[in-house]
Amino acid sequence: TLAAPAIAQSAPEVKWRCTSSFPKSLDTIYGAAEYVAKRVEAATDGKFQIRVFAAGEIVPGLQAVDAVQAGTVELCHTANYYYVGKDPTFAFDTAVPFGLNTRQQMAWMYQGGGMELMREFFKDYNCVNFPCGHTGAQMGGWFRKEIKTPADLNGLKMRIGGFAGQVLQKLGAVPQQIAGGDIYPALEKGTIDAAEWVGPYDDEKLGFQKVAQYYYYPGWWEGGAQLSMMANSTAWENLPKAYKQIFESACADGNNYMLARYDALNPTALRRLVANGAQLRPFPKEVLEACLKAANELYAETTAKNAKFKKVFDEWKKFREEEYLWFRVAEQTFDNFIFNAKV
Amino acid sequence: TLAAPAIAQSAPEVKWRCTSSFPKSLDTIYGAAEYVAKRVEAATDGKFQIRVFAAGEIVPGLQAVDAVQAGTVELCHTANYYYVGKDPTFAFDTAVPFGLNTRQQMAWMYQGGGMELMREFFKDYNCVNFPCGHTGAQMGGWFRKEIKTPADLNGLKMRIGGFAGQVLQKLGAVPQQIAGGDIYPALEKGTIDAAEWVGPYDDEKLGFQKVAQYYYYPGWWEGGAQLSMMANSTAWENLPKAYKQIFESACADGNNYMLARYDALNPTALRRLVANGAQLRPFPKEVLEACLKAANELYAETTAKNAKFKKVFDEWKKFREEEYLWFRVAEQTFDNFIFNAKV
Repeated sequence: TLAAPAIAQSAPEVKWRCTSSFPKSLDTIYGAAEYVAKRVEAATDGKFQIRVFAAGEIVPGLQAVDAVQAGTVELCHTANYYYVGKDPTFAFDTAVPFGLNTRQQMAWMYQGGGMELMREFFKDYNCVNFPCGHTGAQMGGWFRKEIKTPADLNGLKMRIGGFAGQVLQKLGAVPQQIAGGDIYPALEKGTIDAAEWVGPYDDEKLGFQKVAQYYYYPGWWEGGAQLSMMANSTAWENLPKAYKQIFESACADGNNYMLARYDALNPTALRRLVANGAQLRPFPKEVLEACLKAANELYAETTAKNAKFKKVFDEWKKFREEEYLWFRVAEQTFDNFIFNAKV
Repeated sequence: TLAAPAIAQSAPEVKWRCTSSFPKSLDTIYGAAEYVAKRVEAATDGKFQIRVFAAGEIVPGLQAVDAVQAGTVELCHTANYYYVGKDPTFAFDTAVPFGLNTRQQMAWMYQGGGMELMREFFKDYNCVNFPCGHTGAQMGGWFRKEIKTPADLNGLKMRIGGFAGQVLQKLGAVPQQIAGGDIYPALEKGTIDAAEWVGPYDDEKLGFQKVAQYYYYPGWWEGGAQLSMMANSTAWENLPKAYKQIFESACADGNNYMLARYDALNPTALRRLVANGAQLRPFPKEVLEACLKAANELYAETTAKNAKFKKVFDEWKKFREEEYLWFRVAEQTFDNFIFNAKV
């Protein structure tokens, strides 16, 4: 065969499939993957094409990483804490109870050693991770009864997954795994007493305030939830250098895009929810403290039996301590004054 | 002449010069421009090259936008509030007193209508703006004496610029414009009583704690300071579509990079400053309230006499109100609990 000219070799046609863990109805999250795909395509004059598929079109949402690991698809867009059943270490890539807020998670990933730790961990799954999207601090969810003391969590049947469910279990709650579309009827029938989803913009679409009026905050199990693009290692290595760079910057761009969308859309959704009957309630401090104590017990148990988890946790914990120290100063005092001031 | 092949036309060699408003010693800010330049170069296989020059190498730091407007350079990296002397409307692109925090500024720019408003405004300066870098909430600066009441600001000679200086003037302070390198001797000699710079990581390099030990927070005049790339409109329009896309994503990427660097570097710098004698002090609430009142007076005066400012301010103010409403809920309660918890 004839050698292609040098310029063509450096810009080959590449087609990737990206399986999202989310339905198209979660337009902020699903949309972040499409946003990245469009930007990569535009940046390569259409030569590097990424086609995004909603959860279930190729594989179910919770098998996205498996599909990338097996090479069924080159890419997925997911929340890695979905895979804590494989290994709880996955959760550091998204959110863990009483963890980092959004800014702090970004700082950890981009400049605090988090990316290196997670990349090393994901090697075992044949994946390379790229932060791509944030929800901000989530809400604590919808409750049919008020939560006034930690004892009110005892026996509570709540739709909540992963690590957070394990923390609540220590306080007597009964965590349930229920798909998004099934939450409303379960709350309506009383099969469950409470359910967490995301935040005002996404929650509003499912109409929870009609069947569980108490809307609690904050979602202490995800003070900032990061989404990730997960590329198959071989597919990634085969990309030309320029495409790698374009993809990386598009993911960072997608990070801001998704977060900005939530931050711009949540306020008016919250106003509408309250106008339609949602009763806003902060978790009492005593409840947060009991949950923190349970979370710390879970961390101690998990680090004792899982060396990979311990390796990430120990570094992450040091970083978290430093971040809290600094954020207490300029950032927190600015926010606390201004959010409540008469401007 | 012969027509170049189509593929070569779509990837022409482009060389831009970027004049930074900052010295290389501010490695986080100056470095953000270099970071973008490197990523653009890598994404185009070296075909689109941006060479970054420190302040003073081509034009002085505070004339960066003028150089872009005149077409002397294609690009600058700057803080647009430096140009409030041309028009105070410039300040919305960076920070205004008691304005948006970092997340909220990003939400306003990317999804809240801020980008459109600022692009329209910057047309008169022959510039197209791209958010590129954040410092996070800045510190309130270094004071030789404690500030206990608003009266303590009366007669205070402080190194502080732009809009913030005008607010302090209403409380009797005497704002001074002094270049970075001249602040230390001015504080040492007592020519000035106080000076604001950035935050722990940058302030530490200048050694202020040796001559003004009280380190106040927060910097209410920049609860989040955004840096921007400003491209000459004609140079921008002449870029191939793919290069435009690559540049835009690289700037968004640079936004995260710079913010993450500050968030990762500030905590240990703050620890060292305190170990070396800095006395941390929050501005008393009474002082913040007096400054907010003065800022609101200044906004009223400025909107009354400047239609461009009023146009942006009115939209921005509505957005700010909505953001504060929402951030008071999940985000603030998560932060307030966790930053002070025993983790």
